Formats: sequence, C-alpha cells, structure tokens
Amino acid sequence: MFTKLQEECCKANLLLPELGLVLYTFGNVSCVDREKNVFAIKPSGVDYANLKPQDIVVVDIATGNKVAGTMRPSSDTNTHLELYRAWKNIGGIVHTHSTCATAWAQAAKDVPVFGTTHADHLANPIPCTDFMPDERIKNDYETETGFQIIDCFNNKHLSPDENQMVLVAGHGPFTWGKNGEQAVYNARVLEELCKMALFTCQINPDAAPLKASLIAKHYERKHGKNAYYGQK
Amino acid sequence: MFTKLQEECCKANLLLPELGLVLYTFGNVSCVDREKNVFAIKPSGVDYANLKPQDIVVVDIATGNKVAGTMRPSSDTNTHLELYRAWKNIGGIVHTHSTCATAWAQAAKDVPVFGTTHADHLANPIPCTDFMPDERIKNDYETETGFQIIDCFNNKHLSPDENQMVLVAGHGPFTWGKNGEQAVYNARVLEELCKMALFTCQINPDAAPLKASLIAKHYERKHGKNAYYGQK
Amino acid sequence: MFTKLQEECCKANLLLPELGLVLYTFGNVSCVDREKNVFAIKPSGVDYANLKPQDIVVVDIATGNKVAGTMRPSSDTNTHLELYRAWKNIGGIVHTHSTCATAWAQAAKDVPVFGTTHADHLANPIPCTDFMPDERIKNDYETETGFQIIDCFNNKHLSPDENQMVLVAGHGPFTWGKNGEQAVYNARVLEELCKMALFTCQINPDAAPLKASLIAKHYERKHGKNAYYGQK
Amino acid sequence: MFTKLQEECCKANLLLPELGLVLYTFGNVSCVDREKNVFAIKPSGVDYANLKPQDIVVVDIATGNKVAGTMRPSSDTNTHLELYRAWKNIGGIVHTHSTCATAWAQAAKDVPVFGTTHADHLANPIPCTDFMPDERIKNDYETETGFQIIDCFNNKHLSPDENQMVLVAGHGPFTWGKNGEQAVYNARVLEELCKMALFTCQINPDAAPLKASLIAKHYERKHGKNAYYGQK
Repeated sequence: MFTKLQEECCKANLLLPELGLVLYTFGNVSCVDREKNVFAIKPSGVDYANLKPQDIVVVDIATGNKVAGTMRPSSDTNTHLELYRAWKNIGGIVHTHSTCATAWAQAAKDVPVFGTTHADHLANPIPCTDFMPDERIKNDYETETGFQIIDCFNNKHLSPDENQMVLVAGHGPFTWGKNGEQAVYNARVLEELCKMALFTCQINPDAAPLKASLIAKHYERKHGKNAYYGQK
Repeated sequence: MFTKLQEECCKANLLLPELGLVLYTFGNVSCVDREKNVFAIKPSGVDYANLKPQDIVVVDIATGNKVAGTMRPSSDTNTHLELYRAWKNIGGIVHTHSTCATAWAQAAKDVPVFGTTHADHLANPIPCTDFMPDERIKNDYETETGFQIIDCFNNKHLSPDENQMVLVAGHGPFTWGKNGEQAVYNARVLEELCKMALFTCQINPDAAPLKASLIAKHYERKHGKNAYYGQK
Repeated sequence: MFTKLQEECCKANLLLPELGLVLYTFGNVSCVDREKNVFAIKPSGVDYANLKPQDIVVVDIATGNKVAGTMRPSSDTNTHLELYRAWKNIGGIVHTHSTCATAWAQAAKDVPVFGTTHADHLANPIPCTDFMPDERIKNDYETETGFQIIDCFNNKHLSPDENQMVLVAGHGPFTWGKNGEQAVYNARVLEELCKMALFTCQINPDAAPLKASLIAKHYERKHGKNAYYGQK
Repeated sequence: MFTKLQEECCKANLLLPELGLVLYTFGNVSCVDREKNVFAIKPSGVDYANLKPQDIVVVDIATGNKVAGTMRPSSDTNTHLELYRAWKNIGGIVHTHSTCATAWAQAAKDVPVFGTTHADHLANPIPCTDFMPDERIKNDYETETGFQIIDCFNNKHLSPDENQMVLVAGHGPFTWGKNGEQAVYNARVLEELCKMALFTCQINPDAAPLKASLIAKHYERKHGKNAYYGQK
C-alpha cells in the first residue's frame, strides 16, 4: 500500500552514508505523502548497510500512529511529525549528526552568511534554536524538539519554504525540502557551509557577513522570480 | 581450542583500519572469554593487511601467561590484562592512536559533554587520566597504565559499565564494551566526539556543556530502564 | 563543428568532482578556441554524473551569444567571457567553491606566500579582490565579476600569465591556464595552498611570508628562462 | 644493471600517492645501493600514474652524475646526494609537500613531543631548519638545502639514525630510513604527528611536551637494546 513511499524513503536514507553525513545509525530521513497524510521514516537504530524498503515505517500524520511496517520508527519520529503538521509545503525531512553542522549546534551559534555559496541557498544566517527549557526536556522530548524548531522560525520571522535548514542547540541539524532527496541535498550543503564558515572564522576572526545586496543577488538568481540558474 | 575467540578477535581488529582508526600497526583489539578466563589479543607490530585468526595470541587472565599462539602479543597486553581483572563486565578492549582522540589525550583535557551525540553514549565528560608519575613509568609500564586508568575511574567515581572510554594523558584512547565489536564501535564514536568537540571550541571558545537535564534525557533514552532507542 | 572543443571541455569538467573540488554542481570549466574565437562551457546546474560532450555549450567571444548546444550555459558564463576578452593568452578557466579557497575568499584575505609549494606556482600572494560595490552587483553581475577580477590585477600590477588564480571576495576562486586541464590543475593547487596556509596561521599566527630571494628561486626554477623542473 | 634498484625505487615512489602524501608530482623517493655507490631517484615532474621502473634515474654518489636512465632526475636530486654523502647508514630518502608537515615547515616551528605516538618514533622534537641565508639560495640551491639539513642536525646534536625526519623551513619535510620503504613509512608517520600536534595546540595552547622519562620509555621499548615491540 505504501511501497512506493517506502522505496523513496529507503533510497533517500541510503544517500546519507554515501555522502558521509552519518556515522553508524546517527541520522534519518522521512518522506511524506500529503494525499494519504502519512510519512515514511527510517526504523530506529537499524544499520544503513541492511536497510530495505520493507523496513521503513509509515506514520499517520493526523494521529501519529504507525500504519505500516513492523519495526519501531526512529526515536526522532515525533520531531518529524510536528514539522510536517506545521509546515504544509515540505515533503521530506533529514536529521543527521554531521560533524561541522553538529559543532555549530554545540557552539549554539547561528552560521553567518559569509559567502555566496550560502546565499545561493538561503538569504539569512542558518538559525540555531535556543536551548530547550527543562519543562520541554521532561515533557514529550521529541515532540517538543519540533516545537522548539517551529518557535525559532516564528521568533525570527523565517519561512520554512525559503530557509530549509536549522541547528538545534546542543543537538544537531534538521533540514527539509520538497522531497526526501532534496532534504538530503540540503543536509549535505549545510555541512559544507558549516565547514567553510568554521575555516572562515579561523582565517579572519573579524570576517564580516556579506552585505544584503550581494546576498539578495545570489539568492534571487537561483530562487527568485527571474532565476536564471539551472535549466528550468 | 580458542579458535572461535581468535576469529572474533581477528575480525574486530580488522575493523580498525576499515574505520580509519589506525595508521600502520598503531592499535589493537582484545576479546575475552570469561568462562575460560582468557583473552585474545593482536600480536605486536603485525600489519593488519596480513592478520589471520591463527596469529592472534591468547593470554590467561589469572597468570598473565600466553596460552595459545606463536607470536608475541601486543606490547599493550598488560594494560588490557589489568582492565579485564578489575572490571568483570567488559568483554572487549580497544586501544588506538586515532587522530582527534589522541590530540585530546595529548592536550590532557577531559572532553566536555557539548552535545547529544556525546550524551547518547555517556553522561559525563570523557575522562583523561593524570600523567603517570615516574615511579609508574619505570615500573612495569603497561601494567601501570592499566592501574592509571582504574585509578582515574575510582577518583572520579565513574563506572566502566556506563563510561566505556578513557584518554590516557600524553598517550591516547582506550575503549571497551560487552565484546570486541562494541569496543571498536566506542573507539569510532570517541574519535567523532573528539573531532566535534575540537570544532565546537574553535567556533565558540566559551561553549558551555549541556545542562544535566538534557544529558540525562539522551543518555536514558538509549541506556536507561525505559530506553526507547533501537529495536530491542 | 565544435566537437573536439566540447569533448575537451567535458573532460576537464569531469576532473572537478574527481579531484574533490566541487560539491553537486558548484563549479564549471570553460575551454577556448582562439582561432574560432569561441569558448565551450558547462551547462548551468547539470550534474557531473550525467555530463556529456554534447551538453557543453559554445559561446562566441565577440558577441557573447551561444553558437552551439541546446542547454543554457553556466550562470557564470559572462565572467569567463570578460576574462577571455581581456587576457588573450589564457585557454581555459575554472570556477569552483572548493572548501579552503572559498574560506579565504569569504575571509577576504590575500593568501601570503608562506612556502615553496606556493612559490613553485606564483611569486606573490594569491590576490583577493575587493568586495563588489552595489552598482556592480545591480548591473550585469557576472560581467561585473569579470571586471572586478581584471581591476584587481590592474591595481596590483599582476600578470594573468604569471598569476593564474584569484579569489573573489565573499564568493570563491577562479583559476585559468593555457587550457582547461591546466586551469583545473591550478584550481587543485590553489585549494591545497589555501589549506596549508590556514594550518600555517593556526600553528604560528606570526608566520612570516618567504623572503623574496627564496620565492624567486622557486618560481624561476619552474617557470624562469633557465627552468630545470620537469622534462621539457 | 640497476634494474632491481630501479624497481625498488619505483615501488616506493608509488606508495606516496597511495598514502595521500603527494599532490600531482610534489614529492620523490630515492633508494641507495651502497656497494655500487649509487642511488635511484624519481625523474622530475613525471606523473605517478605513469611511472615505470625504467623511468627511474640512477645517480653516482661520488660524482653526482647520472649513470642510468634517459630522463632528467628530480630537481631535488642534489639534496638527496648530500644526505647520502653525509649519512652513511641511510638507505632511502623521501621528500614530500604533505599538508600538515608542510604547514609546520611554513610556520618554521619544531614539532614538540606531545605524545607517545611521537616518542615511539623519535625522542626529541621534530627539528625545523633555519631559513636559508641568501648566499645559500643563490648558490647551488638544492645542494645547499642538503647542507642546511646537515647543519641543523649538527647544531642540535641530533643523530640521523635516531631522528629520521626534518622540516626545511618554508619548504617541507624530508624523511629517511634504512631503505626507501621505511623512509616512506617515516613520511607518513610525520604527517600524522604534525596533524595531531596541530590539533593538540588548538585544544590546549598551553599543552606541555611529554616529560623525559615517558619519552625515553616509549622510544626505548621500540628502539632500545631491550625493545619489546614487534616480533623481531
């Protein structure tokens, strides 16, 4: 019944080790089917080497219940769930502990827009959430992680359609996109942006962010109304 | 007589180069058989490329004598021996000179709990021993290295069941686990935690450790009574 | 009609992922045919995995118009165009966002001549342009990027024949050479020089550039009249 | 006539790219035959991908003249020549521009003995020569580079038998050993020691070198009269 969605989700998950974004089982990808109002997600703690489409768990967005698959879904499932509920346009979500993105999350710092590589993908610093207050940690932690991300976007007036990546303070990155594959693309780009930003600060501790006109130019040439990057 | 143990030990040793944890012969894995009260360990200075199960040396825990194998055991054998003697639950031990873990050991610093990747594995800073006093160095050095590690755990009130990794100051990491394979897993995780912690300090020299509630949450969801990570 | 040029250009482009210089589609190579007064360039946003010679676009240098190929050329085409117009001896151009070169560009710093690896390739700091003024950004941005590079060389009295690499502030590197393959070689060397220079500053924040006599010695033994490096 | 020596030298040279120690042609290995008083060395500027035993050049140690091979020898040949002349026990020499070793050479700093990985190989800081004075640069530069290394060892009272690696200030590393293969081993170890030392300083800018007793312990257990590392 959800075979195609599970295959898509399995394939997107297998990109993570291929791209060097996960160590062991430290990551997961989910993919949504908005018509059926479900999403597919990696089972918890299963090695990528052995991952098969039939292992992928399917969760109902309305109820949060498992509707297909015999395994236990990722422990981060409720974070994915809340993001799918809040943000109607996103089709896939990725969570990793990739090295440089996690380091910025641990440093609890927004990643400044130091260059056009960044501005080609988003027009503002990569946001880092606040640390979660104790009430949230003691509550349903993974659900609350979703709320923490959503609150961050609301407080900073960010759009999840334009800004498809976030760092959860002390934890690591979440990225998303129109589907699982694009969410993985964003996870890979995020890791590279974080690596470049780390090196930039090391070379010049006073490095300034790009000025707004240059950020806008690059963001618009790829994502604006008159975008001219790619083949369309 | 110890064929199965030697095979397990050989296989675990071969994971080290595969995971990028050793250069040349700079590391070793041992695996215990508690019923026979022996452990198997890599022979000293033998290339991983040529390592075969029959090369693996077996050592009696009671006497410290070689009971199988024609080669000389790892020069670090007595360190393994003392850890097996002191800590009855551990089934495998790994020693490497992996780059970032060794750098922290050389810097002689505990690795702070900067993030949930760390807290998923242990709930306190990765301990670094004191530098060995001259008496210990001049004595049976490898045996004393074991004592140095055990003293560190006693002084810091750490449990080797919950904290399965240590840095020996000026030397490098030792890790352990319920068997050799899990000890290797911990060695790989340690290297990644050390790399992330290095980058975290570079991004934010004032980066704060996670607060206790978040550390507990992550450690418990994976290792606590009501753990819900993985498939059980 | 331009088959040979397209094949050369395609082959040079495929070196970029092979050498680890590009992530996804973040880079491009062009190759010139001075007799026909055209250059071939990668199409915009096309994956390297699928790139074929017939995808390569050919552009007329006099008019800037596409004269072969069905796809849209790289969004950076006009930068290449202006460099070919200004500098008659160059036969190939590369643009990447390789990690360390981009970090130096983002830090907006010239890369000092810290060692002979650098002096073997160019006898002065790797220049970083000024940040583009708003007028240039709002204008035909990619054409203006070309002018920004050319102005930098004029202001610093640099020769594009002797100095075949530049960092565009806040953006990333451009390199060139007698053909596309040599431009790729320079892109790879630039990335390594930037990595070494980053580490050099970290080891010794007061590291001094090489003195002029040693720079001259190395540059001349490879590029001077009496060069004796290689087989000639 | 020198076939075996050329084969050994070719094989040792091919280890350099395999171990990630060279980019393009930035390195070379030589191997000596003390009975015939000649050494074999890589030809200048030849790609490793195409290197064959018959390409290897053979040089007479007494005269410095080429005695076999049709190609021009490495531009660094005279540096090798002087080291072979001065140090009678060495059987192979390696020169690379490996990233971290070159960064330390560019920083013009001795690499402190921060850990036992270092002490397992040499019992003192990895020496970095002084910068060459102008007279030496203008003279026969590569011969003088050899003298610069030898002077460094004499001034610091170092033995080339015990200390088989050096950094030439502003240039890069030279290593040696009883044969070409062991010289390559030392080049690889040096690169790792330099990487670890860089990270050590970053974690703890006040990191102290190992105390003499621990250095001696590790050096002696591998190289001393009563060494017990390896299989002998």
